Amino acid sequence: MIVIEQAREMQRYAEALRRKGKRIVFVPTMGFLHRGHLSLMEDGKQRGDCLVTSIYVNPTQFGPAEDLDKYPRDFDTDCRLCRGVGVDAIFFPSNGEMYPEHYQTYVDLGGVTQNLCGLSRPGHFRGVATVCAKLFNLVKPHVAVFGKKDFQQLVVIRRMVADLNMDLEIVGLDTVREPDGLAMSSRNTYLKPEERESALSLSRGLKLAQEMYAAGERDAGVIIAAVSRFIAGHPHAKIDYVKICDTTTMKDAARLDGECVMALAVRVGAARLIDNSVFGEPLLV
Amino acid sequence: MIVIEQAREMQRYAEALRRKGKRIVFVPTMGFLHRGHLSLMEDGKQRGDCLVTSIYVNPTQFGPAEDLDKYPRDFDTDCRLCRGVGVDAIFFPSNGEMYPEHYQTYVDLGGVTQNLCGLSRPGHFRGVATVCAKLFNLVKPHVAVFGKKDFQQLVVIRRMVADLNMDLEIVGLDTVREPDGLAMSSRNTYLKPEERESALSLSRGLKLAQEMYAAGERDAGVIIAAVSRFIAGHPHAKIDYVKICDTTTMKDAARLDGECVMALAVRVGAARLIDNSVFGEPLLV
Repeated sequence: MIVIEQAREMQRYAEALRRKGKRIVFVPTMGFLHRGHLSLMEDGKQRGDCLVTSIYVNPTQFGPAEDLDKYPRDFDTDCRLCRGVGVDAIFFPSNGEMYPEHYQTYVDLGGVTQNLCGLSRPGHFRGVATVCAKLFNLVKPHVAVFGKKDFQQLVVIRRMVADLNMDLEIVGLDTVREPDGLAMSSRNTYLKPEERESALSLSRGLKLAQEMYAAGERDAGVIIAAVSRFIAGHPHAKIDYVKICDTTTMKDAARLDGECVMALAVRVGAARLIDNSVFGEPLLV
Repeated sequence: MIVIEQAREMQRYAEALRRKGKRIVFVPTMGFLHRGHLSLMEDGKQRGDCLVTSIYVNPTQFGPAEDLDKYPRDFDTDCRLCRGVGVDAIFFPSNGEMYPEHYQTYVDLGGVTQNLCGLSRPGHFRGVATVCAKLFNLVKPHVAVFGKKDFQQLVVIRRMVADLNMDLEIVGLDTVREPDGLAMSSRNTYLKPEERESALSLSRGLKLAQEMYAAGERDAGVIIAAVSRFIAGHPHAKIDYVKICDTTTMKDAARLDGECVMALAVRVGAARLIDNSVFGEPLLV
């Protein structure tokens, strides 16, 4: 396994692989890897000849009042974990390498970025789309693997790849959960023991929504009200949003007719947790 | 020579060439080709194994009050001209192919788009950057060749390519001129015979600026005033802008210390003409 810090070196490495006809699989991350990331890598390992991951806490996707500075980092452990799942190359650039002097280009999307986390975190998806466009051009993957926990991010990336005619396949994999149902997240490290029960209100709220859907409920407002009430009943939980959206447009859905997703963002102590579930799909909590 | 209308087919064609180790050279155009375009293609032909051009009047770089509908088109003549200079493939997509339903992704740049044509034509460079990003992903060139007549466009494309880590070389070639000095442009076709003399005020104004520079003048305001007065003395000429900018930032320069460009945009009858000259570089008028 090699660690590459320079953008040009990453690009040359990728181009050399492509010239040899090798298939490149890419798992972009912000590091502090958990079993969710590792499951993406294990899956990715089966999809090509060379598995590349990036570890980069991208500043342009954090708002000024967000947790950029205290976002957890542990590069040595990440390296060990990557080696364990067969990563071939880690791209680990500095901010100066990614956003040098005179930097001024951003990728902006419309509707799919304007609801949910796009409302709560202005500029977030601009930063996500931009850094992914850059990483795709540097790593030159044939396939990139993302988790479905960041559902809107997956929709945004797929939309950008289609719109800008980027020649790669985007794979989305199911959210990996703790045994108690909590979605894996690097930000779970912010949770205090006494906040755990409140943190579980997300996955349990999604389960409640799926049960209502299975029982025939199709009015989004009714389901949202029930789930909001359930989450708000937990002492450390502060709802950011509880929404039901069309999975293509990410616009609020009034009724659950086409494919819809319930998306949650809830602050529990110092952590802002997100979780989601597409109606009618299995939810393993 | 083949003509490709489908985006996916263009991409497959390009990827097959790359797999064979072929070097792809790309000249994007809006068609209605003149000797300026052909000089880019002739130069490009020497730079690789396969010469691809695109002919696409990109709607997203035109403002609502601009000449999108009447922009001149002549695909049959363009094909003949392309064949004559050894073009291997023309990419000729429809608007539906380039901007299908749900399309919503745009590439935005900062400072370098905010002066000159970025002021006169809001959204223009967003459209240019976006369509070039798409075309680069479809044609997969090793090198793309642009004319320097659209100087700001060249700066914008170079900035985008560097910022988004696109793996291609951008080449800028000197403006090709009519024998009387008028810069080649598809929009010259809008000029009436009696407007020709006024149209020459651009190249002659640039010559005046270079003469002042050669004589030691370094105050941008003095040169701008002289050139503006000269152009305004022509009966059909309406100045859009007469500016002197730093070639890296495209910000107005007060003094000609670093590398600076004089950039002109002048309406002559129905035509909006642009021209430019970098101080100290030869100007063949």
